[in-house]
Amino acid sequence: MIIVLKSGVTEEQIRHVVQRIEQLGLRAHVSRGTYRTVIGVIGDEAKAMAEPLRAIPGVAEVMPVLPPYKLASIEAHPEPSIVRVGSVRIGGGHLALIAGPCAVENAPRMFAIAERVRRAGANLLRGGAYKPRTSPYAFQGLGEEGLKILAEAGQRVGMPTVTEVTDPRNVELVARYADMLQVGARNMQNFVLLTEVGRSGKPVLLKRGPSATVTDLLMSAEYILSQGNSQVVLCERGVRGFDPLTRNLFDLAAVALVKRLSHLPIIVDPSHATGRPDIIPDCALAGVAVGADGVHVEVHDCPEEAKSDGQQALLPDQFDQLAEQIRRVAAVFGKKVSELPGEIPCDVDSSLETGKCI
Amino acid sequence: MIIVLKSGVTEEQIRHVVQRIEQLGLRAHVSRGTYRTVIGVIGDEAKAMAEPLRAIPGVAEVMPVLPPYKLASIEAHPEPSIVRVGSVRIGGGHLALIAGPCAVENAPRMFAIAERVRRAGANLLRGGAYKPRTSPYAFQGLGEEGLKILAEAGQRVGMPTVTEVTDPRNVELVARYADMLQVGARNMQNFVLLTEVGRSGKPVLLKRGPSATVTDLLMSAEYILSQGNSQVVLCERGVRGFDPLTRNLFDLAAVALVKRLSHLPIIVDPSHATGRPDIIPDCALAGVAVGADGVHVEVHDCPEEAKSDGQQALLPDQFDQLAEQIRRVAAVFGKKVSELPGEIPCDVDSSLETGKCI
Amino acid sequence: MIIVLKSGVTEEQIRHVVQRIEQLGLRAHVSRGTYRTVIGVIGDEAKAMAEPLRAIPGVAEVMPVLPPYKLASIEAHPEPSIVRVGSVRIGGGHLALIAGPCAVENAPRMFAIAERVRRAGANLLRGGAYKPRTSPYAFQGLGEEGLKILAEAGQRVGMPTVTEVTDPRNVELVARYADMLQVGARNMQNFVLLTEVGRSGKPVLLKRGPSATVTDLLMSAEYILSQGNSQVVLCERGVRGFDPLTRNLFDLAAVALVKRLSHLPIIVDPSHATGRPDIIPDCALAGVAVGADGVHVEVHDCPEEAKSDGQQALLPDQFDQLAEQIRRVAAVFGKKVSELPGEIPCDVDSSLETGKCI
Amino acid sequence: MIIVLKSGVTEEQIRHVVQRIEQLGLRAHVSRGTYRTVIGVIGDEAKAMAEPLRAIPGVAEVMPVLPPYKLASIEAHPEPSIVRVGSVRIGGGHLALIAGPCAVENAPRMFAIAERVRRAGANLLRGGAYKPRTSPYAFQGLGEEGLKILAEAGQRVGMPTVTEVTDPRNVELVARYADMLQVGARNMQNFVLLTEVGRSGKPVLLKRGPSATVTDLLMSAEYILSQGNSQVVLCERGVRGFDPLTRNLFDLAAVALVKRLSHLPIIVDPSHATGRPDIIPDCALAGVAVGADGVHVEVHDCPEEAKSDGQQALLPDQFDQLAEQIRRVAAVFGKKVSELPGEIPCDVDSSLETGKCI
Repeated sequence: MIIVLKSGVTEEQIRHVVQRIEQLGLRAHVSRGTYRTVIGVIGDEAKAMAEPLRAIPGVAEVMPVLPPYKLASIEAHPEPSIVRVGSVRIGGGHLALIAGPCAVENAPRMFAIAERVRRAGANLLRGGAYKPRTSPYAFQGLGEEGLKILAEAGQRVGMPTVTEVTDPRNVELVARYADMLQVGARNMQNFVLLTEVGRSGKPVLLKRGPSATVTDLLMSAEYILSQGNSQVVLCERGVRGFDPLTRNLFDLAAVALVKRLSHLPIIVDPSHATGRPDIIPDCALAGVAVGADGVHVEVHDCPEEAKSDGQQALLPDQFDQLAEQIRRVAAVFGKKVSELPGEIPCDVDSSLETGKCI
Repeated sequence: MIIVLKSGVTEEQIRHVVQRIEQLGLRAHVSRGTYRTVIGVIGDEAKAMAEPLRAIPGVAEVMPVLPPYKLASIEAHPEPSIVRVGSVRIGGGHLALIAGPCAVENAPRMFAIAERVRRAGANLLRGGAYKPRTSPYAFQGLGEEGLKILAEAGQRVGMPTVTEVTDPRNVELVARYADMLQVGARNMQNFVLLTEVGRSGKPVLLKRGPSATVTDLLMSAEYILSQGNSQVVLCERGVRGFDPLTRNLFDLAAVALVKRLSHLPIIVDPSHATGRPDIIPDCALAGVAVGADGVHVEVHDCPEEAKSDGQQALLPDQFDQLAEQIRRVAAVFGKKVSELPGEIPCDVDSSLETGKCI
Repeated sequence: MIIVLKSGVTEEQIRHVVQRIEQLGLRAHVSRGTYRTVIGVIGDEAKAMAEPLRAIPGVAEVMPVLPPYKLASIEAHPEPSIVRVGSVRIGGGHLALIAGPCAVENAPRMFAIAERVRRAGANLLRGGAYKPRTSPYAFQGLGEEGLKILAEAGQRVGMPTVTEVTDPRNVELVARYADMLQVGARNMQNFVLLTEVGRSGKPVLLKRGPSATVTDLLMSAEYILSQGNSQVVLCERGVRGFDPLTRNLFDLAAVALVKRLSHLPIIVDPSHATGRPDIIPDCALAGVAVGADGVHVEVHDCPEEAKSDGQQALLPDQFDQLAEQIRRVAAVFGKKVSELPGEIPCDVDSSLETGKCI
Repeated sequence: MIIVLKSGVTEEQIRHVVQRIEQLGLRAHVSRGTYRTVIGVIGDEAKAMAEPLRAIPGVAEVMPVLPPYKLASIEAHPEPSIVRVGSVRIGGGHLALIAGPCAVENAPRMFAIAERVRRAGANLLRGGAYKPRTSPYAFQGLGEEGLKILAEAGQRVGMPTVTEVTDPRNVELVARYADMLQVGARNMQNFVLLTEVGRSGKPVLLKRGPSATVTDLLMSAEYILSQGNSQVVLCERGVRGFDPLTRNLFDLAAVALVKRLSHLPIIVDPSHATGRPDIIPDCALAGVAVGADGVHVEVHDCPEEAKSDGQQALLPDQFDQLAEQIRRVAAVFGKKVSELPGEIPCDVDSSLETGKCI
């Protein structure tokens, strides 16, 4: 930690700062420059929090030298972590390909979509049972009924499942049905929820909040990791931007950055990042090229009937094509989409024909 | 609602959109322009959600005409609402002046700060017992012990209290001790928590999230209001900005805007908005001038010992001066700081002298 | 300047960094911490640019300790500067009140508006002759003809004038007609133009760019000051924000910040900052309360006929009322709107009745 | 264009709006909804500017239906445009690979870097002679001397050149030496400069400003196109973001979006977008995958001696590797880096060995 003192600081103020540092069991190294005096703090930076030091009279700035996360840092684990969800591996050259509707709406539709994305090569099935909606009057999800449908859909087609949990009181319930728990962007700094999913021991998909820095994201991962749960996959899904033509501003450089700072896998969600099906596939491929450990996209057979976010869903045919392109771009980098074992079960309910709503 | 169709839309696609609208019990008014066809939707806009309509082939854009909030809107309640917390009135010309430390640290300090801010003219006492911290390793608050200390401090000096609640499981507990529940910026879209504080019936201080639009803020208020709880005070505390010299970007125009769109009171928090004691007083006064119904500032007698956010606390002397200036600026607009009844009790514990830590 | 080295830096790399510093005529103070080594650079920081040092292998970060501007800094001139435009003083307790239409449209309208704002108490007359428009197809201003009309309007009512210059080739021309040169937000980092207005010796109104930090703004002022022109007034007019309800995000805390960092006067422009006449007056008053040295607002007698930015203009009656409120808020802080000498000339052309276009 | 009226609008106000529309030679189609009245404007939208209509009493909002750019729009030219710079083609499957130092520093270094990037496969040579620097005290470029050196370097190695022009008075001069004119991010809305480069007829590389929307960028291109110059290549180089870990926020989705809205080629500049050599290559590859028509990177043989932006330059060896990967990713999409004719001349001055400065 480096403490820069104000110009005109008194000797008494300098002594006071040094004293504080020594009280914390650290050593102070005073360097008197031509215009400013700077104090280097030597020892375990974690003992001193930057905040209160900033409040000492005469202190201009306190600059931490180490990142505030530890378990999430690349220094703590120089090899890339591989997270396992059922038989799917995420990280270390293995890509997740997560697909499904925004919300679980009913069983036949969920089963039909599951079959389609499984055939296209997706390896994790998504579908929301608890939907955090901006409006209290919008569809809020089917709750436990939705969890059951998602779980059954996953079993029918042999795919592990991921679904969002929004309430710390529901973590145990959701963990009974799903293979991976998603913490949504709006809850990225819901530390109560982070602590609970950490305790659950289940793999967690942690989405970046719309105004979170990469450091904030890694600090939220640290909450989960510090509960002893190392199965964390990060997800970039766009930050708040100023251009009304896209829903969010897709920060792909953050993926490359996370790869330098942390061992945790990170995937991309171009559906929420852009909100525009016309550019979702291109953005997904850019995600693979920048180094992401997977892609998360929303797929719906009839977006105009979707109960949530239909306007950003890909049609099953579009997803087929995207999955193929993802495999090709991944191959350039020596990576591949993690494969599911077994065949697609034949007894899939095909009473609902998909892609035919219009 | 207005639906703009893509250029080159077919007659069949137009018919399909009209059909969807009519299925929702609404009427469609087709207007064929020189370059584009536009459909006006006539009837109760709430019946049609914009999202799925956007997913219909041939639709370029769907533009809602009404704001998505109802109970929070000025149309629903053209007079400014006045929220009461104990004997304090907020709104309609009555200003809240909320002060206290970021976190409750211990009883003597809390009592001493309470006395100081009460004397300066504050009418609501703040102090955090559950602190949402970016780092899992930082001080997380005293929990119920903190609630007790805050409540006792409030009683000693005759001030109602406000404190943050972060966990839906704790709403009832916090509501037993505090007069007003605060939902913090990071939880502004924690809809589970919003629903619970709505159910509690207690006055709620709802802080704007760092990437929330004014519409988002009012939608979060709508969650609380739609539970039958009309005692909501909004708070502008800065949005995510790009200048590293301030903690956040203080959006004072949002206060003026809320006054045009909603009947709910809105206060400002220049402490979190700027993070710099040198400009907090000026920014607080700007808040009063722009039309805010109150000011929220953090005050600490020894910021360098503060367990949370010490670097942004005002000293008690600085707060005395600010409170005086707030009264003077408010007077220009015919407003006044809501006054507490009774005298400051004489049996205040003054074993701790404040403002003397250095 | 402080140089933080990477963990794992070699002794040879440290020596190399020290050598570079010494080559620049500075001294290096090496401080070996538990986890990181830090080098304090002692001497005139201006000799070393941060950028190339960052490129040396083993260097993690280079942190300047001093602000990069010098002439603009409060250290260079601890008393607030007072800029004079004709007889108007700006700064040091004297407020500018700049008003007029976005663009000069024709002589009768310009004269009529000038008379109205002069009567209301404005002390500087604005009007654009060269309009930087987003669209090449939009009205670009009357050019020299507009400059003449503005100058004549100013003479008729006894007000100094300010107008934008967009082309370095026109600086001399504009300087012949106007009393103050405005550099618009889009040209804040047009360093060629900054250098030319610096050379002109005329007072300059420098508007903050929509993505400029306060440091960037002061660096642009430094370009003008370093040409020997000390007559610079800054202007906060909103930065790029994410809420579509306002045109920009009005950063009033930046005004308070500039007051701590610089001696230069700074005014506010709530017209461009918000783009909404319903909140412009409240935001203007907040500007005065936060410490601005003046207010800039657009006024038009018939906004629906305005050739530029009509949607954000105040009507003359609204401006009358705002000017009165500005005087009252300023008085709380012991400030006043700088007064123009002389009476309003009686021979004002009143063939055009204003405020009557509908 | 769609005009939404305020609730409570009077019949007289509606008539007034209709009258205005008809005065412009357009037709009005009034649609009276349950809550709001909406007017569809039928005819050539370009005749009516949105701005003054917004200022009419009773008007709540004016929503244009067509994009404000015409020549830049995909409708105007449904096939992708191919821009030629010397023998290099950009667009339509042909990639530009632009490389070179930030600034031209001296002849031997420029020649040596030119040779290296030519060998690696770059097809356009960059180097700044006029540098727009935030600080008036920083190196501002060699001016005409720099132009000469760059031109000679290009001739030696058989590469066309691109360099920035910052002053409208210099356009002709720069156009004499360089094959392509660059308009930098800070000058994206310097409309005077845009008009001059438009008149020059030379190919233009137009960089996106840090707070420009995609619409703003296309409007700036429209300025150039409307001068009869169709040789415009856009460049995404990052917008202003809030994370201090990267210099800007790389908006790769904007590239995909431009491809849907315009026929103009667009390339990416990961050097300025991120400012971090450790992630520049990954971000460059993401740019190719998202659909960019080229990549622009800064290369320097000894970044710590660079006079500008050394901290973000790639070393020649890193560039060799990146160029190879770009070719491989491009091949997946059936694209290729545009090839230069002829061999690398043998008489290259190799007195300066590169990559050896440490």
